[in-house]
Amino acid sequence: MDQKEGHFQIAQSAAHGGRAEISGLERRLLEGLLSVCGDPPIAFSLWTGEQIRGQNQDPPVARIVIRERSALFRMLVNPELFTGDDYSAGRVDVEGEFVACLAYIFRGLDSLPETSLKAKFLRWINRPRANTLAGSRENIHRHYDLGNEFYRLWLDRERMQYTCAYYAQPDMTIEQAQIAKLDHVARKLGVQPGDVVYEAGCGWGGLARHFAKHYGATVRAFNISEEQVRFAREAAKREGLDDRIEYVLDDYRNMTGRCDRFVSVGMLEHVGVENYPVLGEVIRGVLAPGGRGLIHSIGRNRPAPMNAWIEKRIFPGAYPATLAEMMRIFEGSRLSVLDVENLRLHYAQTLKHWRERFEQNTGRIASMYDERFVRMWRLYLGGSEASFLTGALQLFQVVFAHATDNAVPMTRHHLYRS
Amino acid sequence: MDQKEGHFQIAQSAAHGGRAEISGLERRLLEGLLSVCGDPPIAFSLWTGEQIRGQNQDPPVARIVIRERSALFRMLVNPELFTGDDYSAGRVDVEGEFVACLAYIFRGLDSLPETSLKAKFLRWINRPRANTLAGSRENIHRHYDLGNEFYRLWLDRERMQYTCAYYAQPDMTIEQAQIAKLDHVARKLGVQPGDVVYEAGCGWGGLARHFAKHYGATVRAFNISEEQVRFAREAAKREGLDDRIEYVLDDYRNMTGRCDRFVSVGMLEHVGVENYPVLGEVIRGVLAPGGRGLIHSIGRNRPAPMNAWIEKRIFPGAYPATLAEMMRIFEGSRLSVLDVENLRLHYAQTLKHWRERFEQNTGRIASMYDERFVRMWRLYLGGSEASFLTGALQLFQVVFAHATDNAVPMTRHHLYRS
Repeated sequence: MDQKEGHFQIAQSAAHGGRAEISGLERRLLEGLLSVCGDPPIAFSLWTGEQIRGQNQDPPVARIVIRERSALFRMLVNPELFTGDDYSAGRVDVEGEFVACLAYIFRGLDSLPETSLKAKFLRWINRPRANTLAGSRENIHRHYDLGNEFYRLWLDRERMQYTCAYYAQPDMTIEQAQIAKLDHVARKLGVQPGDVVYEAGCGWGGLARHFAKHYGATVRAFNISEEQVRFAREAAKREGLDDRIEYVLDDYRNMTGRCDRFVSVGMLEHVGVENYPVLGEVIRGVLAPGGRGLIHSIGRNRPAPMNAWIEKRIFPGAYPATLAEMMRIFEGSRLSVLDVENLRLHYAQTLKHWRERFEQNTGRIASMYDERFVRMWRLYLGGSEASFLTGALQLFQVVFAHATDNAVPMTRHHLYRS
Repeated sequence: MDQKEGHFQIAQSAAHGGRAEISGLERRLLEGLLSVCGDPPIAFSLWTGEQIRGQNQDPPVARIVIRERSALFRMLVNPELFTGDDYSAGRVDVEGEFVACLAYIFRGLDSLPETSLKAKFLRWINRPRANTLAGSRENIHRHYDLGNEFYRLWLDRERMQYTCAYYAQPDMTIEQAQIAKLDHVARKLGVQPGDVVYEAGCGWGGLARHFAKHYGATVRAFNISEEQVRFAREAAKREGLDDRIEYVLDDYRNMTGRCDRFVSVGMLEHVGVENYPVLGEVIRGVLAPGGRGLIHSIGRNRPAPMNAWIEKRIFPGAYPATLAEMMRIFEGSRLSVLDVENLRLHYAQTLKHWRERFEQNTGRIASMYDERFVRMWRLYLGGSEASFLTGALQLFQVVFAHATDNAVPMTRHHLYRS
């Protein structure tokens, strides 16, 4: 997991706002930050050339390079948000093990007592944006309409799935694991030839094409990202599946009609907890008697806002819910949860594979956007991997059916037949 | 599922409190009760000899026989609680399909809007009793210390497990399915030879003996029922397992030391939601790093009190929690949910097997207790079966580990190897 950062020319700032030396207070605050994080084997390397260590005497796995006094101040005020921006701008850097370093920091921030003033303040500035119909469109546009070319450079080449893969065997490639995920989901749903499947939030439409091609399903797939829907429609046409797939450029709340299977992979993060009962009502309304559904989403062990920097710069409006919060989808809508699987470590592995491919394409990505964009996405991918590795984030697959349906499978044995 | 009720001499009451004829109001109230229940194919047969039907014109699957006007009044005031007592006393009877009849009624009561005055009143009279340490002892004593001989007459003969079995194959006997349950739980926990297993609420100790004998585990099993613990200790001695099992007559809240695996099958129903964070803290305190846990409990799709009659007469202090409520165990204790499986229909099948064996032994049970006891338990077993069949009750197995544990299994494939 060594991360070479040397290829990017850092903008050195000439003025450091007065003194070049650091004060005793600054030193104590940095030591305090390491102490809050449980004294990890991490060093600070400052613009003065000075090194700061905490209590940990082991050789550091990483050095956090702070190139300006102003970046140090921002880090102390809000380590989540501003360090992300300063890293993107090259005012903060990481030398050594990138993901391991982030993992230590995330563990430390996660260990803050929930009632501490700092935690309350972080919650306030990190409050997620509302997902009204219009707000959802704007939030989704900012992330998913970056350009299909960009995502094509580092996602799996088969189905371009921007969600957690399933490593049925540990040595799978990202392509194999993404197909395995689609098959795992199809088995959990018990998709049969002729089934009508509704999909909420279909990305580039890979699940719909896989279900149509390999399971004989008819799919109506909803998405509010124009670029993704255009891509998905073209791909379906190319594969001769456009008679069995309808990609609908619309919000899941506008679903009507009837389906045998309801599936949503990686949309719930953008729905907002306040809309979960509405989602439940939509599902209840469209899911035929005897139907089955699956929601696949990033989650949490306990309520906490999205990492502020990711929410602000990468995923506006995103919120990973706890299982208890997710139950608001089902409780009011007479739906019954049949099965929950936590795939946290599969997402860590997925992100590792994405990040490796991303790093092979940084030259191209920098020419498409700029260096700041590359560093922003490096931090996002590495930070997400660290979050799943440390248990700050979870990945839940939840299978459900109407509460009174007694034709559900008795065991999960059928999921694991080879 | 035909249920013959004719073998019990019903106490006919001489005085009906005045008129023998039923009034127009009484008739409309009974028709209203059928209407609330969605007009099932059920008839009322009254002490006057009169039959009352709702809108449903199909041949009735069952007749609810009301032998006294006072029983009718009680049914209209609180159908859950008083009908149970009147059934036990023989003032109310069911002719025809017993479980199907109960299932119709439960579905009807379940469909009451939560905000209706009736629902609020039912919630108030049904409020569960507090599970203080002393309260728990009294509540548990009333149910589990009825006498081991009684339970031996109808539970599985191998391990006397008074919890949901696991029908890995649909044609399993209750004995096979209860052993399959223990193996399913052991696989989910990943029990290895030499592991220290703590069990909270061990019943007659069958899980502990199975884990010690077949998985080489050392088990400390807690229970506050004296009769059960005495039975369990004798059984362990008889099987030569007493060097590897310690049955502790104590509350789970007094657990100390360290375990590799934590398991609790059928205790959570008696814990009380207000104590879930305490249970979580107990687990966090005893579970070693790298340890794993499983909680197996009756649950609900949405919050509702326990059936009032069962709570009052059979299971004092019992409450089936929703998954969201169960999460209070884990959220505050940095535990991560890995897997949830809903075994609702396995419990319906378990209850069917229990009930069949119970009915083969009613003569013996009546001589040990009395006819009222037999009828009370018939209603309890049949009512529980109907609750699982209608989705009024669920059965959740929840697997968890410390939030930072990355040595958890990547997939659930190992659970389904033959």
